[in-house]
This record gives sequence, structure tokens and C-alpha cells, in this order.
Amino acid sequence: MKALEEKIKREGTVLPGHVLKVGSFLNQRVDTIFLAKMAKETKRLFKGIKITKVLTVEASGIAFATAVAMALKVPMVFAKKHPSANVSGEQYFSPVYSFTHKTTYDIAVSKEYISSDDCILITDDFLANGNAIKGLIDIVHQAGATVAGCCAEIEKGFQGGGDEIRKMGYKMESLAIVENMSDTEIEFRGEKK
Amino acid sequence: MKALEEKIKREGTVLPGHVLKVGSFLNQRVDTIFLAKMAKETKRLFKGIKITKVLTVEASGIAFATAVAMALKVPMVFAKKHPSANVSGEQYFSPVYSFTHKTTYDIAVSKEYISSDDCILITDDFLANGNAIKGLIDIVHQAGATVAGCCAEIEKGFQGGGDEIRKMGYKMESLAIVENMSDTEIEFRGEKK
Repeated sequence: MKALEEKIKREGTVLPGHVLKVGSFLNQRVDTIFLAKMAKETKRLFKGIKITKVLTVEASGIAFATAVAMALKVPMVFAKKHPSANVSGEQYFSPVYSFTHKTTYDIAVSKEYISSDDCILITDDFLANGNAIKGLIDIVHQAGATVAGCCAEIEKGFQGGGDEIRKMGYKMESLAIVENMSDTEIEFRGEKK
Repeated sequence: MKALEEKIKREGTVLPGHVLKVGSFLNQRVDTIFLAKMAKETKRLFKGIKITKVLTVEASGIAFATAVAMALKVPMVFAKKHPSANVSGEQYFSPVYSFTHKTTYDIAVSKEYISSDDCILITDDFLANGNAIKGLIDIVHQAGATVAGCCAEIEKGFQGGGDEIRKMGYKMESLAIVENMSDTEIEFRGEKK
């Protein structure tokens, strides 16, 4: 999505440790007019594929998942990272290693929120090593449901997670794929130098 | 909002400890068609009031805040409960006591995401003792910005937080106010018995 690539170049900042900071429009502060455009583009990318639910993981994935689910007119479900006292009943769990926080945590979804006849679009804001999305794929399989596909707003192509998910046979779309980044330049996949 | 009251009666469950479980449509699993209606109603309730940003707190407040901000065509900002390694620069903090988790945590918003000329609508999914919304009001004041008003999807009227915020002089709207609840019955404010 060319408009997203341009926005990342204009408003994104590269921090030490291959951190791409896009909090000003993508996660902590969300440009909702642009979000609606990204949701529309996601709907287009998965046109013709049956989707009954959108699944993401808290917290920064929720805004995008909500907008995509609103565009598709299906429910949005998010996995919790910190299972709460308010969650009753049985849950599906999957362990996820976070490179950002350097720790493994469980992501959890109540069993009642996914059923075996669901066709699920998995979305997230960022895709780097792909561990969060792989954990969500694991949960969809535990529920006996179908993975309709996966979509990230921004994929860090050089970290390989997206390509691993593609090799696993899933339709994995990303609205922008960063192939290389330095303090001074961000290069996208397929972009002519 | 009558449709929300009916939905709570139909799909909500009362758990021990005055916990109203509405995860099946309001937070962990979000009915996005209904969410769009709640966002439209919120827009109507604040018609004529200048709003430049919607502010909430992660994680379960994000879906509603996103939908409201999309309806108003303004940015959505969320406060973090667990300040992340990815947040650079200075932040506004406010301590919030959670009755659910029986602990005090800081909520934090990067200073760059709120400016003194902002008119901010504060939203959340639930309002009980009002501590989260009061923390967000504190952050808006720290930024020198204006509180345009506050809106919760569901207020537990019997816990008093909403009325305290009204007494403080803020326009505090809730789409449904639960006045009493037991295992067998949920009664809304203004509802004829």
C-alpha cells in the first residue's frame, strides 16, 4: 500500500535496535482517517475469501483489527496477554516469545469466542519474527477453526517472520514490508533503489 | 441507549463480586455492527462540542475509542498500563487503583500525543469507581488540554464513579447505566420497575 509506505517514510522514526517507531499514527496515536483506508485495502486483499471473524492480540493490534472487522461486518476477538480475573471458563493458550520485552508470555482466548466453523482472519499492527501471529494460528487450530489468512499493517521483512508464515502455506499479506532500514533510510520490498 | 440495555439483558452475565460479564459482545469479542451504532450514538451525544482527539486506556477500551474516533474523524490515543521499551521521550503519568486487579498501576501517555490546544473526549468500555477516567482527566490537565467530555459504554451507577465525575463538572455520558444487578435481574437507571 503505497500511501502507507509514504506515511512511514514521512512520519516514522528508526530507533536503535531495529525499532521502527510509528506510534504517532499507527498504534499509540491512531490516525483514524488513514486507519479506515487501511481497513478498506485489507478487505480488498481478502476479497472472495470467507471470513467470519477477525482475531488479534492486545493491545496495539486492537485498533486495526476493529477497523478491519467493521469493514468486513464481522466480530473482532482479541487474545489477552494477561489473563484477567474477569475471564471465566476455559481458554485456549499459546506461548509467545516477545523480542521487544525479552520474555515468553501466554496469549489466551476464551473458548466460547471461537468455534470450529469459524474462518478467521488474523491481524496485527507489526510483524517481525511472527511469533504473535504464529501463536494466534496455533489458537485457531486448537479451536478446530480455519485460518482464512493473516494481515499485518507493517512487516519487517528482514526479520523473516512473514516469509516463514507464507512457507507454512498461509495467505500472509502486509500493507507495507520494510526490507531494510537505517537511521537515514527505510527501504520497502519491491521498491526500486 | 435502549438497544444496549436490551443487549446487556439478553447477552450479559452477572458473576460473583458485582462483575458484569459482557465479553461476548463488548470487549474480548466485539460485535462490530453494534459497535458502529454505539459510536454513532456517542457522536450524537456530543454534537456541537469541539473534539480534536479521543483518549482511552488499553486494552479493552481501544475498540470503542477507535470506533468513536472514526465516527468523529479525529485521532485516537490510548494510555498504556505497562510502559513499553518502545515508548521513547517523556510521558504524562497518573496512578490508577484497579478494583478488578486490586493494585495501583500507572497509566502513561507520551507527551507528544496530546497538545495544549486539544479538546479531548475520554472514553472507556466500563465505568465503575471511575478511577481510570479520573486518571485520564488528570493526564489531559497535565497536558494543559481541555476535557470535552467523558463517555463509557456501560456505567455501574451503584458504584458512584460516574456521578462523582458529573459533580466535578464534566459532561459524563454513558450508553447504559446499570443501577442494580443481581444473579437474576439487571436494572438500568431511569427504568420503570
